[in-house]
Amino acid sequence: MTQIVKKRTAGGARTLDGRFVTSREIFQREKFKIFATHWLCAGRVSELERPGRLFTVQLVDSNLLVVADGDEIRCFHNVCRHRGSLLVHEDSECGRIGSRIQCPYHAWTYSRSDELVAAPNMEEGSFDFSEHGLKPVACRVALGFVWVRLGQSGVDFDDFFRPLIAQVEPWSLDDLMVVRRIEYVVRANWKLLFQNYSECYHCPGVHPALNRLTPFLGSSNELSEGPILGGPMRLADDCQSMSADGCAVGKFLPGLDRQQLRSVVYYTVFPSTFISLHPDYVLIHRIQPVSERETKVSCEFLFSTESIHSNTFDPGPAVTFWDQTNLQDWQVCELTQQGMSADGYEPGPYSGLESIVAAFDRYYLSQI
Amino acid sequence: MTQIVKKRTAGGARTLDGRFVTSREIFQREKFKIFATHWLCAGRVSELERPGRLFTVQLVDSNLLVVADGDEIRCFHNVCRHRGSLLVHEDSECGRIGSRIQCPYHAWTYSRSDELVAAPNMEEGSFDFSEHGLKPVACRVALGFVWVRLGQSGVDFDDFFRPLIAQVEPWSLDDLMVVRRIEYVVRANWKLLFQNYSECYHCPGVHPALNRLTPFLGSSNELSEGPILGGPMRLADDCQSMSADGCAVGKFLPGLDRQQLRSVVYYTVFPSTFISLHPDYVLIHRIQPVSERETKVSCEFLFSTESIHSNTFDPGPAVTFWDQTNLQDWQVCELTQQGMSADGYEPGPYSGLESIVAAFDRYYLSQI
Amino acid sequence: MTQIVKKRTAGGARTLDGRFVTSREIFQREKFKIFATHWLCAGRVSELERPGRLFTVQLVDSNLLVVADGDEIRCFHNVCRHRGSLLVHEDSECGRIGSRIQCPYHAWTYSRSDELVAAPNMEEGSFDFSEHGLKPVACRVALGFVWVRLGQSGVDFDDFFRPLIAQVEPWSLDDLMVVRRIEYVVRANWKLLFQNYSECYHCPGVHPALNRLTPFLGSSNELSEGPILGGPMRLADDCQSMSADGCAVGKFLPGLDRQQLRSVVYYTVFPSTFISLHPDYVLIHRIQPVSERETKVSCEFLFSTESIHSNTFDPGPAVTFWDQTNLQDWQVCELTQQGMSADGYEPGPYSGLESIVAAFDRYYLSQI
Repeated sequence: MTQIVKKRTAGGARTLDGRFVTSREIFQREKFKIFATHWLCAGRVSELERPGRLFTVQLVDSNLLVVADGDEIRCFHNVCRHRGSLLVHEDSECGRIGSRIQCPYHAWTYSRSDELVAAPNMEEGSFDFSEHGLKPVACRVALGFVWVRLGQSGVDFDDFFRPLIAQVEPWSLDDLMVVRRIEYVVRANWKLLFQNYSECYHCPGVHPALNRLTPFLGSSNELSEGPILGGPMRLADDCQSMSADGCAVGKFLPGLDRQQLRSVVYYTVFPSTFISLHPDYVLIHRIQPVSERETKVSCEFLFSTESIHSNTFDPGPAVTFWDQTNLQDWQVCELTQQGMSADGYEPGPYSGLESIVAAFDRYYLSQI
Repeated sequence: MTQIVKKRTAGGARTLDGRFVTSREIFQREKFKIFATHWLCAGRVSELERPGRLFTVQLVDSNLLVVADGDEIRCFHNVCRHRGSLLVHEDSECGRIGSRIQCPYHAWTYSRSDELVAAPNMEEGSFDFSEHGLKPVACRVALGFVWVRLGQSGVDFDDFFRPLIAQVEPWSLDDLMVVRRIEYVVRANWKLLFQNYSECYHCPGVHPALNRLTPFLGSSNELSEGPILGGPMRLADDCQSMSADGCAVGKFLPGLDRQQLRSVVYYTVFPSTFISLHPDYVLIHRIQPVSERETKVSCEFLFSTESIHSNTFDPGPAVTFWDQTNLQDWQVCELTQQGMSADGYEPGPYSGLESIVAAFDRYYLSQI
Repeated sequence: MTQIVKKRTAGGARTLDGRFVTSREIFQREKFKIFATHWLCAGRVSELERPGRLFTVQLVDSNLLVVADGDEIRCFHNVCRHRGSLLVHEDSECGRIGSRIQCPYHAWTYSRSDELVAAPNMEEGSFDFSEHGLKPVACRVALGFVWVRLGQSGVDFDDFFRPLIAQVEPWSLDDLMVVRRIEYVVRANWKLLFQNYSECYHCPGVHPALNRLTPFLGSSNELSEGPILGGPMRLADDCQSMSADGCAVGKFLPGLDRQQLRSVVYYTVFPSTFISLHPDYVLIHRIQPVSERETKVSCEFLFSTESIHSNTFDPGPAVTFWDQTNLQDWQVCELTQQGMSADGYEPGPYSGLESIVAAFDRYYLSQI
């Protein structure tokens, strides 16, 4: 195996101040400056194919309803315009009648294109239905995902996603299907998860199994500045993909070139998503901050229809491998949260292998 | 069945701002402006008939001791004047020796009329027993309940309760006995519970069983402005009372007239109590705010001695019915708490059927 | 039995304001004014004899690493100078390789005398290892314990401990061994635990078993002002030590005089430690504040090697006795926390038997 040893530098950058992972005030500021202005991954378009054709998602302080309206996908605040009840909640079938969305409290009913269509017992004289439609949230589709922007203004969708879409085109994410989802609660600030994902300097010690499949010095960076960061890691000569035994678990994705078939490519999409592109599947991490000290993570495994329909298909070795790797990462993220919260912490220096972490910090600080 | 369709209006009122159910500061202000100045339901007089003849109750930030002293009923802060220990606590028999109240920490002992009567090892020269009696809390009895006012000043008891006492006189609440109590913890602001109780607009969707017994349009308001609000709902022609099968579970209360025997009458007593008067029993909800997002509810079923002593007495069908109804209400209260806490919420319009909710809001806003 | 009734006075002192046990701001101030400036008990020197020869301890906001380095004992912040991960954590063996301390995240490695000795992939040109050693914490040994001072300045170790060391010399604490440890979480402010330990006025009511062994009026004070407070209580004529049956459980400690063999001597060492000296063993309480309303307590039983090596040695009757006594104390501490947090609380007068509690308050108030 040939190792790529590319000279990288973090340019003398140091880690963030401790208050960035402990301060409630900074977390509040992040809501306005970061989570309201960027496009957040709300879920997979294919989730809209099930009965009801809608799903809900909590993103920071917003509870959202993503609905299919014919071929259109729309996003609304999941909040009734009458008394403010959540319209659709996880544990029940209420909230839907046929194609409409009905509030479980007083049965106000909305169409899928936001109009209030029924509100029993409201005086029709003074009450204007057109003023009480669902409140829309900006919503776009790319790579088979629904992306939402909570605030009225912020980054431009097309400008933002153009470089990513070009990079990941060969994996045809639109066509892949979720076959497994694992949810985690990590007691660490969301930024520590991004920083952890952004370097493999920790791989030899924290992930011995992973490091055998993709030796940590075999990485290079394609996107090394800005909100989307990352690049490939070369697979070891005797490995086909990331799995318990290094064998592929799905069929190789047809659009990949020779180099892509011998690599795993990792991207972070600020501030909500990690995309890990394998020769035979794609792994997605959706990062949902709960507080300055706690983060939910939803981890999904996407395979091609061809893989899924194969008689011998078993994603287990990939799922097991990444579940173990995730848990190893969450542990060091939690230890870092604890250490950065302690009195003895002060910012430390990044190594050249952490150049992407430093780039993440730079982009973060430019936004906050 | 004839429906009463009475024209009501909420006068263009809209629901409260979200901060009224999420702000810690407003919750603190409510303690001073509302819970300290109004008479709160502390419990049933009959609870004083058991051994010990006292009970404790937590109301907002006060832990209170209600004691029978001969024929007098008194209320004190349940806090020792020495080191501040609670005197009587739920889990133990300590705190009582004979008719006296003894601190479990250093055995300071108080009479039932507040005097410190023993304080071992205090220098008698300099120590003045008369300055270290229990701290009294204003306390009155009405309708078989003990009512307390935490602050030094506030609303006048007689003025406040006169209209209610006149309305509920026929049900002879003084004479009724508690046969069952259910406790709930609801993750919603206390005001959402008052608002929920104050309208039956939600009944068709949320309470199909209740709505069959008392169709939601059969309501009218007798007290429609101020701190005590409510009125009757007419029972369906084939129903006798609120229970699983619509049959009465107790004997009809003797003082009721023909109309009262065909109705259930609902009152809210700001800011702590709901009174639901049935032909054969009375239901009481005591509302105890824990935080801006959490409320304890104690729900009690009161029957006449005549009912209780009947051979066939079984309150089960009433208890089952109201427990189910309560749980349905708490769910929509919790969904409303979540929705009003979310970014997408803004105040919405009340319907005419919510005129009492609007009146509750008006009284609340006049006090805060 | 002759009782010592010595006239004591609290000089008209009253208990602390409620905010001293409820205010988050005061708890934060205590961290700087009290916990950073005083010497805190971090643990027993003998804990360093096990494999790895180090232990961690959380003291207020600091997570500390205490290590044996040959004959030296050192204390460091348990925080890596790179990304801030905790270096050693309870649940794992990582953090140690041979005599060195290795970070679980990126394998930065430190010697036991604080130097960074390995940091993989750091550019050696610009990176100065000598600037990235572990951050030391002031650390001293006395009575077989490691004491640490979190802040740069504060009380002088020798001046502070001199009076205590003189008093406890006969018990030879250096030579005793921990045979049992019990951990408690008490939902009360740390000061309430100090106050509770500082008087036996509560013993007749709260600890009937203890009060039979050492009647509460048989106490006297040797250190009655300042940061170290306490003195002896005389054992009842038919008792040898504090245990379930009043019999000694270990061999009498050889250095004790006749009076010490007939007493139990109690000292509080502000703000972290209680030392209870028995004829045959020593009991230590280490007090670790978690918040203004919660405190962890670690309670250790120390015996002589001679006792431990005896064929019939069984510390059970002492452990059982003190566990029961502790639980009785925590209950009244928690009731006092609740009462002092309630609206009805106001400071009350101390009795003469609480002179040491008043002295504790005076020293505390002089520091805060």
